[in-house]
Amino acid sequence: MAPGFSFELRATDGAARLGELTTPHGVVQTPAFMPVGTQGSVKAMRQRDLEEAGAQIILGNTYHLHLRPGDQLIARRGGLHRFIGWQRALLTDSGGYQVFSLAERRTINEQGAEFRSHLDGSLRQLTPESVTDIQARLGSDIAMVLDECLAYPATREQAAQSMERSVRWAARCRARLADIRGGTANHVGATNDGQAQFGIIQGGVYQDLRDQSAAATIDISFEGYAIGGLSVGEPIDLMYTVVSDTARRLPESQPRYLMGTGTPEDLVECVARGIDMFDCVLPTRNARNGQLFTSLGRLNISNARFADDDGPIDPACSCYTCRTHSRAYLRHLYKAGEMTAGALNTLHNLSFYLDTMRRIRDAISLRTFERFRQEFLRSASRLSLDS
Amino acid sequence: MAPGFSFELRATDGAARLGELTTPHGVVQTPAFMPVGTQGSVKAMRQRDLEEAGAQIILGNTYHLHLRPGDQLIARRGGLHRFIGWQRALLTDSGGYQVFSLAERRTINEQGAEFRSHLDGSLRQLTPESVTDIQARLGSDIAMVLDECLAYPATREQAAQSMERSVRWAARCRARLADIRGGTANHVGATNDGQAQFGIIQGGVYQDLRDQSAAATIDISFEGYAIGGLSVGEPIDLMYTVVSDTARRLPESQPRYLMGTGTPEDLVECVARGIDMFDCVLPTRNARNGQLFTSLGRLNISNARFADDDGPIDPACSCYTCRTHSRAYLRHLYKAGEMTAGALNTLHNLSFYLDTMRRIRDAISLRTFERFRQEFLRSASRLSLDS
Repeated sequence: MAPGFSFELRATDGAARLGELTTPHGVVQTPAFMPVGTQGSVKAMRQRDLEEAGAQIILGNTYHLHLRPGDQLIARRGGLHRFIGWQRALLTDSGGYQVFSLAERRTINEQGAEFRSHLDGSLRQLTPESVTDIQARLGSDIAMVLDECLAYPATREQAAQSMERSVRWAARCRARLADIRGGTANHVGATNDGQAQFGIIQGGVYQDLRDQSAAATIDISFEGYAIGGLSVGEPIDLMYTVVSDTARRLPESQPRYLMGTGTPEDLVECVARGIDMFDCVLPTRNARNGQLFTSLGRLNISNARFADDDGPIDPACSCYTCRTHSRAYLRHLYKAGEMTAGALNTLHNLSFYLDTMRRIRDAISLRTFERFRQEFLRSASRLSLDS
Repeated sequence: MAPGFSFELRATDGAARLGELTTPHGVVQTPAFMPVGTQGSVKAMRQRDLEEAGAQIILGNTYHLHLRPGDQLIARRGGLHRFIGWQRALLTDSGGYQVFSLAERRTINEQGAEFRSHLDGSLRQLTPESVTDIQARLGSDIAMVLDECLAYPATREQAAQSMERSVRWAARCRARLADIRGGTANHVGATNDGQAQFGIIQGGVYQDLRDQSAAATIDISFEGYAIGGLSVGEPIDLMYTVVSDTARRLPESQPRYLMGTGTPEDLVECVARGIDMFDCVLPTRNARNGQLFTSLGRLNISNARFADDDGPIDPACSCYTCRTHSRAYLRHLYKAGEMTAGALNTLHNLSFYLDTMRRIRDAISLRTFERFRQEFLRSASRLSLDS
């Protein structure tokens, strides 16, 4: 249904899956990590840095781009890819999560969400139809349906009602995209004929609700499926269990995306449970705060112990930052408040995440994923360099 | 006297000079522009961006580096080049200008300057000897003498006394470097045997004082000479006249550096008056504020007229920013407060400055500099895109 979009499952190792996602803007090897480019820019990165680090797909935020510079303006520029100068694949979220976390004075009803912009207080509305239209204008390769995001903890009844509404919204999103694809909503001004659309499974931590959500969402029929509403404060083991039990309800032949997760350990653990795609602000946000991920654990570059340390952030890393600069210099840049600190740290953290995904794919391909996983989890906690 | 350091004058066209400065860290084609890397980093740039833009020499600030992370720490790292991961030439100023502009509660006497750090209020002293030691530890390829910086306007008497003190300080700096070179100050811990030292001509806008300063400073004998105390608020024509009349007092066979200047037009006009080297924060600072230099004049990227502009900043520029991004996208990044705006804008402005220097050198080499100058000044003012 989305020309130029397909998913091929190439190998499995236990529940872990090696795949290839073909999009109108190139191939994405899965399991894949998607750096978050909220406002059309992965913070502190240039597009060529992302390419060099090996990113094959990045994420843009519909809420932010709708408010500024506006999806109509981006559509006039030929879509988000052309506007931001990014040739590879792009996924956009639906904006739902940001309405819940950023917007002011929001009211949610069956129609959609009404809220005030966090930028200028203007009154805005997002509905299943409008987020589909906005994403069609942005022209991402993968659009997400609007879902209701629930805080944790939620009662079973809250979770059930919210999940059911999300299913109804998903159906409306799908119907709207069918209109756009079918030419009965040409005025929308879609910029990517091959845009795919993913449904989102909700249901909180109640597995029977997750199962109902999966069945109903699969019934609508999307090009791929996401697990939403996790990484919102629930215990980590509970999250892993929900991921595991939900992933096995999803079609084997289609991509599975765990939204908003996580630490490097989370990526490995959730690949082990059958997830193909991830996104998270952790590597970029933590980099700007001086927290760096390494093959031996995390370190905080502002720590005084690095003042005279001539070694790289991570001896096992081959990114530009590690090839060129010492911990001593990076600590100095961070303490001195130089913008370049954020850029160099982000380049490293994203390289670490994307390298980890490459190693995961290699291990699945060699059917050594379980051994890789054990060693990775051991190494990641070997040092505790945090201050 | 400085092994590995030499200057060769290769061609002249009127007063304009084409030269080649050989340093322990590579050759610098002159006329040259030096991007300012105050704290060991040209703001928003990575070292490879600078190399790509064509920078053959950058400047570091002794005042800042002495306070943080400290010249002793940098010396332990093997010097400033190794500390910051920069393979090409480096010049360090003496810190004098920053003492006058940044430090708190400063007192100046014949011995030197006493002040409180702008970072932590600690009491510090800079003397001709200590700034020579600090720069020896930093190991820059070119060190500057400590000079007294005078505000504009100054009376003739103030300018004369200040100039005379600067000459005495220059002699003390030279004597100290001779001790370091001669091995009688080994405890200093110099990190660059080939470090050259430039004297600085002062005297305000009083040409007879400038002439006296030049004669006395040349008498001390340095590897090169700078003109200091300009671009401090005097009328532009007066600055050009002082540059012109002072440059002609300087040895033909040695490099001439005009400190802290200036606009693109200033560079062209001062090359026309015999200057070989420049430094200025204008391209980097203005970039972070959204003001961009182009072959058709300046533009402010925040201007609403660029919201739907798909063209590059400067159609005549081949930098990464202009090759990849539109004014519309750059305006969005700037308005959204994305760090990448500063990085992309800085890359462009520095590319414009360094391209301008290349075009200047080509024109001198072809003996078409006067025509180039006329055309450049006409083009630079063709558009006024400022908001």
